Amino acid sequence: MSTKNLKTWIEVDPKSDFTIHNIPFGIYTDAKVEHHACSAIGDYIIDLFELESLDLLNINRSVLAEKDLNAFIALGKTVTNGVRNKLIEILCDENSVLKTDKKLFDTIFKKQSAVKMLMPVSVGDYTDFYSSIDHATNIGTMIRDPKNALMPNWKYIPVGYHGRASSVTVSGTNFHRPKGQQKAADSETPVFGPSKLLDIELETAFVIGKSTQLGDSISTEQADDHIFGMVLFNDWSARDIQTWEYIPLGPFLSKNFASTVSPWIVTLEALEPFRTKGYVQDPKVFPYLEYKGDKNLDIKLDVFLKPQNGEENKICTSNYKYMYWTMEQQLAHHTVNGCNVNVGDLMGSGTISGPDPSEYGSMMELTWRGTKPITLKDGTQRKFVNDNDTIIIRGYCEKDGIRLGFGECVATLLPAK
Amino acid sequence: MSTKNLKTWIEVDPKSDFTIHNIPFGIYTDAKVEHHACSAIGDYIIDLFELESLDLLNINRSVLAEKDLNAFIALGKTVTNGVRNKLIEILCDENSVLKTDKKLFDTIFKKQSAVKMLMPVSVGDYTDFYSSIDHATNIGTMIRDPKNALMPNWKYIPVGYHGRASSVTVSGTNFHRPKGQQKAADSETPVFGPSKLLDIELETAFVIGKSTQLGDSISTEQADDHIFGMVLFNDWSARDIQTWEYIPLGPFLSKNFASTVSPWIVTLEALEPFRTKGYVQDPKVFPYLEYKGDKNLDIKLDVFLKPQNGEENKICTSNYKYMYWTMEQQLAHHTVNGCNVNVGDLMGSGTISGPDPSEYGSMMELTWRGTKPITLKDGTQRKFVNDNDTIIIRGYCEKDGIRLGFGECVATLLPAK
Repeated sequence: MSTKNLKTWIEVDPKSDFTIHNIPFGIYTDAKVEHHACSAIGDYIIDLFELESLDLLNINRSVLAEKDLNAFIALGKTVTNGVRNKLIEILCDENSVLKTDKKLFDTIFKKQSAVKMLMPVSVGDYTDFYSSIDHATNIGTMIRDPKNALMPNWKYIPVGYHGRASSVTVSGTNFHRPKGQQKAADSETPVFGPSKLLDIELETAFVIGKSTQLGDSISTEQADDHIFGMVLFNDWSARDIQTWEYIPLGPFLSKNFASTVSPWIVTLEALEPFRTKGYVQDPKVFPYLEYKGDKNLDIKLDVFLKPQNGEENKICTSNYKYMYWTMEQQLAHHTVNGCNVNVGDLMGSGTISGPDPSEYGSMMELTWRGTKPITLKDGTQRKFVNDNDTIIIRGYCEKDGIRLGFGECVATLLPAK
Repeated sequence: MSTKNLKTWIEVDPKSDFTIHNIPFGIYTDAKVEHHACSAIGDYIIDLFELESLDLLNINRSVLAEKDLNAFIALGKTVTNGVRNKLIEILCDENSVLKTDKKLFDTIFKKQSAVKMLMPVSVGDYTDFYSSIDHATNIGTMIRDPKNALMPNWKYIPVGYHGRASSVTVSGTNFHRPKGQQKAADSETPVFGPSKLLDIELETAFVIGKSTQLGDSISTEQADDHIFGMVLFNDWSARDIQTWEYIPLGPFLSKNFASTVSPWIVTLEALEPFRTKGYVQDPKVFPYLEYKGDKNLDIKLDVFLKPQNGEENKICTSNYKYMYWTMEQQLAHHTVNGCNVNVGDLMGSGTISGPDPSEYGSMMELTWRGTKPITLKDGTQRKFVNDNDTIIIRGYCEKDGIRLGFGECVATLLPAK
């Protein structure tokens, strides 16, 4: 349903991420609630389990009291979109009992600042793609050959790999600088110690909303029905560990110490108004990767670095629209061999860099491998992430008076244990 | 406890995989039982949920009626070893009520041929290593440089990567030949279609028995407490898809269409008598990878290829003792950066090849990339696996009159969909 002309009776700052056009899903906890499914409007979360005491959503209430959204999402888009539309209807109904009954309101609506958001889904499998052409070109230029920066397969395949699901944590979960083996280019042998080149990767990820059986494939046309929604994602990377370990089987310990997701899943339906034209793909892709319509998305993405007790410094402004491969293509590729997907699986975009140096989505690119340090407001410099630095990713869409955002994806790098 | 001089009152063929020295764990189903935890002796499975109606095992009976062993394993080794020891005691007690009460016996003991074994655990994350030096040398010789077959990191790092957990299936689950992009060495561009180079990988895998928190590391000394037991493992691989996709992020669609595990988890305790000396590791490993004692295992491994309606052909005889890196080292490496592990996680050995060509653990090596086809008993030849071929892996340990085995790891390659 279009939310364009709708207005809610809740006071919402027009610059809020959680306008009536969003209505995302998450899981929260507070002193009284162990874990309930929730949505958000303005500064509030909406406790869906409590709301369903009114029997408005027409679903089995128990799925709203689980520790993750997996069972809710598995009900299917007819149901979950129905819940989202019903929420929008209630929030725009001037005669809603929620507006008039203060006690009821206080049971269901809680200030976001008073609750803690949990992991929105239990991630069965986590896959990360490598689908930004500017990022792949930058990395290829730096570590391989500037004249052949893209690998020969890159424009044929939405290149991806399997990541570690266990270490995907929700925004606000800090972690220690990882230790591991590293080898300097001019050294014969490796050394062991804390990573010195700890990097971020500005990404988004999509959450699988509909499972398949082993042997099934999902076409680009069917893909949207299997994509529940999107989150912001920081795929922390230890570049020195990565360089030494990644040949021939890919990144391993350089990535699996922590990955951070934002807690709110913004539904694909909320994102529809922000669809935009995708890249012209040349060479032409194989038929199973062809798609119709505008399948890219205009999502503005910002990265901030905040030193301990310091101010936020914006270090990158990028946009999801720079993706060469769409989510629909990624999912079609992932399953063309019969690989099965499950509700709650997470699929990362890969670092999203734009063409301008201010749009590079990793410190590796922003500082060009440390050769062009970033100077912060406090006068200190960064080549990579320092101990106790906090990284904040924010993302939002804005078009024709409609605005919605993802909230924050934030974590602090603690010193090595 | 040592089982050396024990004798059970159940008739067991001395060549059985399921002697009194084994007592593995699994999950079965039949017409009456949706899923119960079980063990095995001789030709029987032992329904542990039914057995616990006698209140002999001293555990919460409900964990024995779950769809996987995760909750049982999570009780910890003190409990699970206690259950195993109690089973051994009962099976050796000539005065056991199970021996004398025929009706009770028939409730608890069922012929293995009359039940179906299910996935023993729900796999949260699946990791695959690459720890056989003969395998890594063979592959490096074939696809890179015979003079520098091993990558520079190989003797410093138990190289591994993240695989797909969703497509790990239990023995007996057949699957279709995967489709995907392939590029011939002499072609400029890739083609799309069914894989032509469908391969096996003879592996074992170990199952995590004790979880850790993000940020924790497991030392080689602590590792055995986190390893519940082992299974046989076939990490099916589409070599042509792999060659085209794997640079720079590693194998993806070439591996995630199917991986097959044997249904019985043989405990680390059952395997203790078969410990053997590990490889001399030169160069010396980093301190976090050092270990004490004999940590390799003498597990004899055979691979059979059975054409449709044809006879079994043994195509490989290898041994787990050929592993350069031990499980304890793999786990210490996997967690040295703080990566957390969970009960039920699966860690594959990587293809286990021995020094002799008859001991190579993949078709790629056995036929040396298809240049030396294998001739089967029926006169047909194989370079890789044909449609409707069944691959069977068997594994067993035998020493000083003690024998135990893993059962079978079997699956049939069906034609592409």
